[in-house]
Amino acid sequence: MEASNISRLVVREQKLGHRRVDDEGQVTYKHKPTSELMSAIQLGIGQSIGGLSPKPKRDVLYGDFDVVESIFFPREGSNSTPAHRYSDFRFKTYAPVAFRYFRDLFGIQPEDFLLSLCNEPLKELSNPGASGSIFYLSNDDEFIIKTVQRKEADFLQKLLPGYYMNLNQNPRTLLPKFYGLYCYQCGGKNIRFIIMNNLLPSTVVMHSKFDLKGSTYKRKASQQEVMKPHPTYKDLNFEEFYPDGLLLDADTYSALIKTIERDCRVLQSFKIMDYSMLLGLHNSTIANRSVNRTTDQYSKTVLQPVWRMAQFSTALEAIQSNADPMSVLLQEDQDLLGGIPAHSSNGDKLILYMGIIDILQSYRFSKKLEHAFKSMIADGDTISVHRPGFYAQRFQSFFANKIFKKIPTRQSHSFPLILNVILCRAFLAAKYACVRACVRACVWCGVCARACV
Amino acid sequence: MEASNISRLVVREQKLGHRRVDDEGQVTYKHKPTSELMSAIQLGIGQSIGGLSPKPKRDVLYGDFDVVESIFFPREGSNSTPAHRYSDFRFKTYAPVAFRYFRDLFGIQPEDFLLSLCNEPLKELSNPGASGSIFYLSNDDEFIIKTVQRKEADFLQKLLPGYYMNLNQNPRTLLPKFYGLYCYQCGGKNIRFIIMNNLLPSTVVMHSKFDLKGSTYKRKASQQEVMKPHPTYKDLNFEEFYPDGLLLDADTYSALIKTIERDCRVLQSFKIMDYSMLLGLHNSTIANRSVNRTTDQYSKTVLQPVWRMAQFSTALEAIQSNADPMSVLLQEDQDLLGGIPAHSSNGDKLILYMGIIDILQSYRFSKKLEHAFKSMIADGDTISVHRPGFYAQRFQSFFANKIFKKIPTRQSHSFPLILNVILCRAFLAAKYACVRACVRACVWCGVCARACV
Repeated sequence: MEASNISRLVVREQKLGHRRVDDEGQVTYKHKPTSELMSAIQLGIGQSIGGLSPKPKRDVLYGDFDVVESIFFPREGSNSTPAHRYSDFRFKTYAPVAFRYFRDLFGIQPEDFLLSLCNEPLKELSNPGASGSIFYLSNDDEFIIKTVQRKEADFLQKLLPGYYMNLNQNPRTLLPKFYGLYCYQCGGKNIRFIIMNNLLPSTVVMHSKFDLKGSTYKRKASQQEVMKPHPTYKDLNFEEFYPDGLLLDADTYSALIKTIERDCRVLQSFKIMDYSMLLGLHNSTIANRSVNRTTDQYSKTVLQPVWRMAQFSTALEAIQSNADPMSVLLQEDQDLLGGIPAHSSNGDKLILYMGIIDILQSYRFSKKLEHAFKSMIADGDTISVHRPGFYAQRFQSFFANKIFKKIPTRQSHSFPLILNVILCRAFLAAKYACVRACVRACVWCGVCARACV
Repeated sequence: MEASNISRLVVREQKLGHRRVDDEGQVTYKHKPTSELMSAIQLGIGQSIGGLSPKPKRDVLYGDFDVVESIFFPREGSNSTPAHRYSDFRFKTYAPVAFRYFRDLFGIQPEDFLLSLCNEPLKELSNPGASGSIFYLSNDDEFIIKTVQRKEADFLQKLLPGYYMNLNQNPRTLLPKFYGLYCYQCGGKNIRFIIMNNLLPSTVVMHSKFDLKGSTYKRKASQQEVMKPHPTYKDLNFEEFYPDGLLLDADTYSALIKTIERDCRVLQSFKIMDYSMLLGLHNSTIANRSVNRTTDQYSKTVLQPVWRMAQFSTALEAIQSNADPMSVLLQEDQDLLGGIPAHSSNGDKLILYMGIIDILQSYRFSKKLEHAFKSMIADGDTISVHRPGFYAQRFQSFFANKIFKKIPTRQSHSFPLILNVILCRAFLAAKYACVRACVRACVWCGVCARACV
């Protein structure tokens, strides 16, 4: 009895949603080894994209959103499918013509898409998040494959016409970029998954990472999460780490907040809520400092240039900044890699990577119940599941007022620039613990920030 | 008894759908005098468009297609509506933000839209067509207002997301341009109407006019129709008048057929059928000949230049011709006014005005029954109501093969151009009844056509 209880405990500990890890470390999803799932997915995508390519391009029609194409992959192969080493399976492609249109919109060529996803083994991410989804990353760091529940896949399909409208009007958006929706069917099981853009480049060290909703109720990373090598922190942690928020220049701040507001309006129109902003911070100041100390760690800490296939996929491209991203890149020592330049209030130079995630949970489907339940145990204003309009409003206010702060423009400076520089130097010369104060007085000269580290 | 029968007969003859004409010639629609309807519509549109203008422009959301705004117009006026001389009424605007987006797409400014529709009385068209709808034409010839049935209005609202998609991908289309959908409510009656582009400019004399479906079953204008001053002919009449079709240069032919095919694909995707091509022909050769005879009739027969407010609204703009419309205009003596240049096989120079009409009859709503019924009495291939795919295929084949013909390009000419010119002149000099023969031999030199009139 006791042994059985322990065994149950172990099983329970290693199971999250449909994801299980056995004693030997093998990961399964719906009892299917994820290594087999990965290979089958690669076969399926290869066939689906390859089969679509020769078909002449034409306009997307409204009916294209409802189309589901299905290919059977017998183990021994068929006229149209190769032989393989796994169980027979069926591979379904949702709305193939519509997703081809989306990929086109982001400048993703079929051959590049195939090369990224099917040419080399995918990397399985070890941290499955709260949902128990499986995440794969393409070898070139461009795409994320994520398993989704049936209701999420259904909701995405319903969302497609509105998603199309939004992308047409705004290819620049922080909403997830969906490049495909598929279903792997085998032995009575359906494993649905989406292909998305990768928000946090692997080649960039994220000195901290946040999942932010604009709520305070239970929005603190657990002790278990904090113990991880790369924890994902939450709203309350952010307020603790950055009580003064992150400082952006006026143009970038406006562009970013405008984009968040527009994205929230779209989400609200679909009654979507409970979404988060995933925010990764690269601290250039810390990275450069550690380089100075140990040059052999250079390659791990400082940004490495990578080529991004998809357009509008970086945070900098996603926001509607009037500033030319290239000129910003040049100003910022060409080390942004699509991140948004910022400063912390202590003068550290930051590069921000971000995007809105988890949008496929419709309010109508399951959230009403959750809200009703949580309302009983907490004040309605602070729980993270609330009416979509309220949720959107709170989300955008949180980012406009708490997370991001606008650096005053030079014109609104209370002292001439040169005077501030002198003041800063004076502060420093007096060995005054000045960094925060002088950055507040003069964030533009940068002397204090550079001299004070 | 006899008098009563006669009276019934008179009433029956003067009623078509909801449209009635009484003994004094007053036209009513759902028992509402159309003069009152027109004034109320102008009040309603003025208020609706005027109220929308100050609202800041924003992206169209999917939810915008379902919005219906309602304003009450009491006779004595209110804070937001003027006093008027008619019965109290309510005015509903469907999807105001979505239609504003469509008007923007066609370059129609709110103030121009208001000026066209509300500044001067509308012209009521006397020929109501088969549906018994009321048609008003704006004084500047730009817009048509047409009453529609409830199921047509409902269908248009359902169509809007797909319509949006099509316009985004192809502002150049021969499909109707919908600029607004409204409903006038008074005394328990609902009168719904749409605002569309006007296909046939009033300032252009249409020497013949066709409603073409690509079907032959009962597709001949009635004797009653033929007796009218400006009859609308049908498919069988066209084949009789133009057995050799209408000749277009290769580029124009390709662009036109490509546009028809794309439009048919959209209609088919919505299971729409029973639509027609409205085709107006202005015969420049005849017009110029009559000018030569009676110069006082010049203004009535030859094209008058007009300024078109809406973009992509003329037939020439609607087709995806690679040829610059302006250069075509210059070539064709600047007298096209957005019409498409063509020739008849007897060498007459024609200008074509066209567009697809009557698309708001969904297959699912009422056509299935009609098809089942008509199948019993006629061969399925020839009746005009058939499955949408078949309908679309037959429609586009009809235009590609019977209505329009491609003039062979110069390169494929069997004789050098100069030789053809000499041959033509020789035919003419010999007073041979040559026009058809020489145009067939050399449609490019145009000498015969110009010299032979």
